[in-house]
Amino acid sequence: MTGNSFGKTFTLTTFGESHGGAIGGIIDGCPAGIEIDLEFIQAELDRRKPGQSKLTTQRKESDEVQFLSGIFEGKSIGTPIGFIIPNTNTKSKDYSHLEKAFRPSHADFTFSEKFGIRDYRGGGRSSARETACRVVGGAIAKLLLAHHKIQINAFVKSISSISLDKNYQEIDFLLIESNEVRCPDKEVAELMIKAIENAKKAGDSLGGIISCVIQNVPVGLGEPVFDKLHADLAKAMISINAVKGFEIGSGFEGTKLKGSEHNDEFYKDSSGKISTKTNNSGGVQGGISNGEDIFFNVAFKPTATIMKSQKSVDKEGNEIELEGKGRHDPCVLPRAVPIVEAMSALVIADHLLRNKTSKI
Amino acid sequence: MTGNSFGKTFTLTTFGESHGGAIGGIIDGCPAGIEIDLEFIQAELDRRKPGQSKLTTQRKESDEVQFLSGIFEGKSIGTPIGFIIPNTNTKSKDYSHLEKAFRPSHADFTFSEKFGIRDYRGGGRSSARETACRVVGGAIAKLLLAHHKIQINAFVKSISSISLDKNYQEIDFLLIESNEVRCPDKEVAELMIKAIENAKKAGDSLGGIISCVIQNVPVGLGEPVFDKLHADLAKAMISINAVKGFEIGSGFEGTKLKGSEHNDEFYKDSSGKISTKTNNSGGVQGGISNGEDIFFNVAFKPTATIMKSQKSVDKEGNEIELEGKGRHDPCVLPRAVPIVEAMSALVIADHLLRNKTSKI
Amino acid sequence: MTGNSFGKTFTLTTFGESHGGAIGGIIDGCPAGIEIDLEFIQAELDRRKPGQSKLTTQRKESDEVQFLSGIFEGKSIGTPIGFIIPNTNTKSKDYSHLEKAFRPSHADFTFSEKFGIRDYRGGGRSSARETACRVVGGAIAKLLLAHHKIQINAFVKSISSISLDKNYQEIDFLLIESNEVRCPDKEVAELMIKAIENAKKAGDSLGGIISCVIQNVPVGLGEPVFDKLHADLAKAMISINAVKGFEIGSGFEGTKLKGSEHNDEFYKDSSGKISTKTNNSGGVQGGISNGEDIFFNVAFKPTATIMKSQKSVDKEGNEIELEGKGRHDPCVLPRAVPIVEAMSALVIADHLLRNKTSKI
Amino acid sequence: MTGNSFGKTFTLTTFGESHGGAIGGIIDGCPAGIEIDLEFIQAELDRRKPGQSKLTTQRKESDEVQFLSGIFEGKSIGTPIGFIIPNTNTKSKDYSHLEKAFRPSHADFTFSEKFGIRDYRGGGRSSARETACRVVGGAIAKLLLAHHKIQINAFVKSISSISLDKNYQEIDFLLIESNEVRCPDKEVAELMIKAIENAKKAGDSLGGIISCVIQNVPVGLGEPVFDKLHADLAKAMISINAVKGFEIGSGFEGTKLKGSEHNDEFYKDSSGKISTKTNNSGGVQGGISNGEDIFFNVAFKPTATIMKSQKSVDKEGNEIELEGKGRHDPCVLPRAVPIVEAMSALVIADHLLRNKTSKI
Repeated sequence: MTGNSFGKTFTLTTFGESHGGAIGGIIDGCPAGIEIDLEFIQAELDRRKPGQSKLTTQRKESDEVQFLSGIFEGKSIGTPIGFIIPNTNTKSKDYSHLEKAFRPSHADFTFSEKFGIRDYRGGGRSSARETACRVVGGAIAKLLLAHHKIQINAFVKSISSISLDKNYQEIDFLLIESNEVRCPDKEVAELMIKAIENAKKAGDSLGGIISCVIQNVPVGLGEPVFDKLHADLAKAMISINAVKGFEIGSGFEGTKLKGSEHNDEFYKDSSGKISTKTNNSGGVQGGISNGEDIFFNVAFKPTATIMKSQKSVDKEGNEIELEGKGRHDPCVLPRAVPIVEAMSALVIADHLLRNKTSKI
Repeated sequence: MTGNSFGKTFTLTTFGESHGGAIGGIIDGCPAGIEIDLEFIQAELDRRKPGQSKLTTQRKESDEVQFLSGIFEGKSIGTPIGFIIPNTNTKSKDYSHLEKAFRPSHADFTFSEKFGIRDYRGGGRSSARETACRVVGGAIAKLLLAHHKIQINAFVKSISSISLDKNYQEIDFLLIESNEVRCPDKEVAELMIKAIENAKKAGDSLGGIISCVIQNVPVGLGEPVFDKLHADLAKAMISINAVKGFEIGSGFEGTKLKGSEHNDEFYKDSSGKISTKTNNSGGVQGGISNGEDIFFNVAFKPTATIMKSQKSVDKEGNEIELEGKGRHDPCVLPRAVPIVEAMSALVIADHLLRNKTSKI
Repeated sequence: MTGNSFGKTFTLTTFGESHGGAIGGIIDGCPAGIEIDLEFIQAELDRRKPGQSKLTTQRKESDEVQFLSGIFEGKSIGTPIGFIIPNTNTKSKDYSHLEKAFRPSHADFTFSEKFGIRDYRGGGRSSARETACRVVGGAIAKLLLAHHKIQINAFVKSISSISLDKNYQEIDFLLIESNEVRCPDKEVAELMIKAIENAKKAGDSLGGIISCVIQNVPVGLGEPVFDKLHADLAKAMISINAVKGFEIGSGFEGTKLKGSEHNDEFYKDSSGKISTKTNNSGGVQGGISNGEDIFFNVAFKPTATIMKSQKSVDKEGNEIELEGKGRHDPCVLPRAVPIVEAMSALVIADHLLRNKTSKI
Repeated sequence: MTGNSFGKTFTLTTFGESHGGAIGGIIDGCPAGIEIDLEFIQAELDRRKPGQSKLTTQRKESDEVQFLSGIFEGKSIGTPIGFIIPNTNTKSKDYSHLEKAFRPSHADFTFSEKFGIRDYRGGGRSSARETACRVVGGAIAKLLLAHHKIQINAFVKSISSISLDKNYQEIDFLLIESNEVRCPDKEVAELMIKAIENAKKAGDSLGGIISCVIQNVPVGLGEPVFDKLHADLAKAMISINAVKGFEIGSGFEGTKLKGSEHNDEFYKDSSGKISTKTNNSGGVQGGISNGEDIFFNVAFKPTATIMKSQKSVDKEGNEIELEGKGRHDPCVLPRAVPIVEAMSALVIADHLLRNKTSKI
């Protein structure tokens, strides 16, 4: 009930504060027989880890995952996959000044009120460090999806007002990892990098939009009413730290179209497969995947942690002045790309398994 | 697993096809002792019902809810509240031509593939008629929320390109029900009505955006990681038929702000309450309500059913021409306002109860 | 959270008080494509209904189930199956004297304390009338299990001290329905019937044991740790009104055996199938079905409602004298046989579906 | 769906094979503010650990729990409590001969069939080592229950045919830990110890019955229909390795009583509290605790691992002869006492929290 589990059949449950002994989790419901490629999983984690480029926090965390169960002779065995990622670089002293402070747009105040007690070191449970566990779960999910040739590609679409104005169909996904901002367009990426560097220098932070495309999803995933495929994707995305918005297919702009413009006409393609000519639906109709590409946008607010001085109050309601110190990300989007993919993979894996019982 | 239940502690499970014997549901987890105001519940249903104005489908459905259990001497008694809404006006003949057809941007194709069999009459389970049950569940939730003085107001913010460009703080919610489009601004409402009438004449349909504001929510609702309050709101909204997007607080536009502009500074107000000066967070920080107003936007695509002829394929993959017939809504937004409110009420009621165990 | 749902993939959620408008439920997760044999379902209900013989309460309830959704052209369509059973013969006046009284070994006191309010008419939600909905759910589950040739047979093994001392292997299940007590042995059945008639004359009630045998269950159902197949069967059985005990395989008596006597030796039978020579395990090993017959016993206490005068207290704690009146079952076991089968069917159906994802 | 979680509000999810890197789990839903007494938790684990006396396996496992999250400055903070217990003494070589063998009445065969692959070392996931995690979860639950003065005492009631024939009311619970068999009667305990020693010498094993008494449970815990308090206790108990039966209150013997003998008459005691004169109900009526002591029996079969040679088959169906080797418990009951208590604590803690929302 406390919301530390995600998924109904393929389930990830996580634990961990940023400055406790370790973070970790349990992946439950992974079918037996999946080859567990440990290098791939670590590589996914490395895409998320801090300190990977000059754009991200200079905090170094090795983020090495240790699997403790559920894998035998290189394969999943159907039992829960337990894992931990030790917290190795926890400078608790950095945070002592925050014991009583409520940082603006952080979770300090709400945690304090909700639980009456909080681990104030580094954000505790509300630290984005928690998302490393999502990446581990998502990596296992991706290994399951690979059996079905399902592919997931996320990329940075905009940073502040700098936007990649292309349809995803025009994009070469292989370019995503070619630069440190994970925008698959050299020129736009350079502008973004410059903007982030400027924000960093100013002690400020930037937000932006990540796009995600899921391909080769079979027809039939998702449930008709509350657990629509895109409803679960929306929840998955909005549950990521700093996310404020989600839109699928035609999204907010599509509200300005007429029905006759928006409807996706069916036709039989040359291979005999029923397809749609357009894809305003974003690959989901009536909450169920229709075999077309699933694509959606995720809005990230600018990071709450900034290096500028800010006014706030403390636990007792006294006015305080917060000095920016410690290590922070001037823009989380480059590191959030693998998180968006991981959460997508968890949703699709879950619905893939759930769909095994739709027909006799 | 088939996604017909919503909520974890305050739960709504629904059933029903548009042309079966009845639709209905079970509200489980409602605490005992709530006064059940049947007139209020019926009034909520009436706000959603078809045929209420010239803007909506002329299909008349009385949508009278019958409660079968869980209420005794006017109060909830802690047992499940079962209810049905009979399907009274089901012209099944209208739909016989759709037995094999896959209507564009409807769920005909995906249901067929997923289940191998479908009730093709009036959309069956994928019909928006299902949302009447959400309104019943939401009305019970609102009665629970009324004990905590929590208020929910949704309204139509835009229809196609016609938009009410005011902050919600400038709006008088009492005006929402003053016109048939449920836009709380007389002049904008008139433009919207005209646009819908024009679309109707053209046999076409329009989309738009509904805004929702939730007030007096206590600090502490929502769970830190996956079940963030706004993640559950997002899922709730995206699960409504025709919804393509969700944004809370600063939303997509907020991605263009800097952290120093976006952060909501805390202060102690004159009553000693800790508040924020701005509310870019939209009332939720770290997934937990912070006591400020919660507000969000929901994007609705234009209705898929139009009266224009469209090309498509049938079950066997044959090309077909679909003639627009039957009764339809040229724009669902006016009727969707109470649905947005109902889903909001379900989420808040659920988290209100879940939060009873956060502290010893 | 209020425990009105059973099962994780194949789920039954019920509602209803004995004297409300109707009882009913929602069966969710039934795969599409199952032929729904309505006569069979009604026949199952008739096995449970009151007034079927002189051994049971003379209260007449027609218990006619009405399906409202989820079935189209005679088949399940993968959407939730909603149903109601109207409460037709509700003599509310019979119960007015119980508004404040706490009947011994009934749920009057505990409901009052838990909820602060209760529907005192006929036991309300705690009435065994609720089990009619379990029979409907179980009947649908049986139709699913029939696709896998799984068979479930329950029978009365003992009434008070009169016991059928045979292994189930020696029993002809076809005799179960040959007498009104549902004991598949003519002579023992006659003794049981006499005992029940005597108890009835004396205004008293009897308990006993129901045995259940499930055959043709494939190897592999059940989950290793908490959701062991027999753990879920135990919960299913103990959740039936008046049940006080459950044992599987060798059960309580088996605690007196040595390991060398109790262990079930594996061998390859003539068909090449791996089987066990004995079946002290009762068809479940490590929580997972092993392909042998599953068999277990369920202990029912004597009915709490008796026609003798009893002392008790009322809501205010005043001493009262309760006169036996109204209609009651001197022994519930004959009518509980289909309930035990129904709950068994729900457990097996649920695990059958859950097991679809155990391997890649 | 794979059954590695227990509880709905206070939840324990576990992972781990006996010979993997570690076993462990996540306790989710523990309210913030509970003092976490680490010594108490370790003491509970020590009651379960192997090698604690000559009656148990001589395998030495230190079973030291490491908490990784959810605790700060000695208190629970409302976030998930992650923990691991490293597997330190894993002689994997001992089990290499079991790679293909199906040991009688073990889970080797069923795991192989269900998952297609299994960790054959030491039973893997089906090893009773998994129950150490239940003890950790139960210990945290006990700390929560201590706030409500709820007490749980389990003890060995019988070993094979040697039985402690006293009502629990006549027993001094302080004697439970006074001998290595955990039977609170010196003379009966000595007989039990002798019987276990004899079985050990003979390379055989014994079963028996554990009784459990839960005191000071408030009125109102448990849900009326499927999640009856004793139904959840039954599931909890039957889910423990080697358990074959459960009975509460009057249990199987009570089926021989008449209703007039079995009913528990209410009265107002001298303090004004409504109580029952007898307690055949075992503290639960209509699935809900009534404030009386909850007591039940749990039947354990004799340990499947014996040191005698046994016939069986291997994966390919070849007949094999299994020699008894390795380390084993001739009788698990003494070590199972804390497990029975732990599972009881988990059930009561869960329902205590669930009951917070029964009334407005």
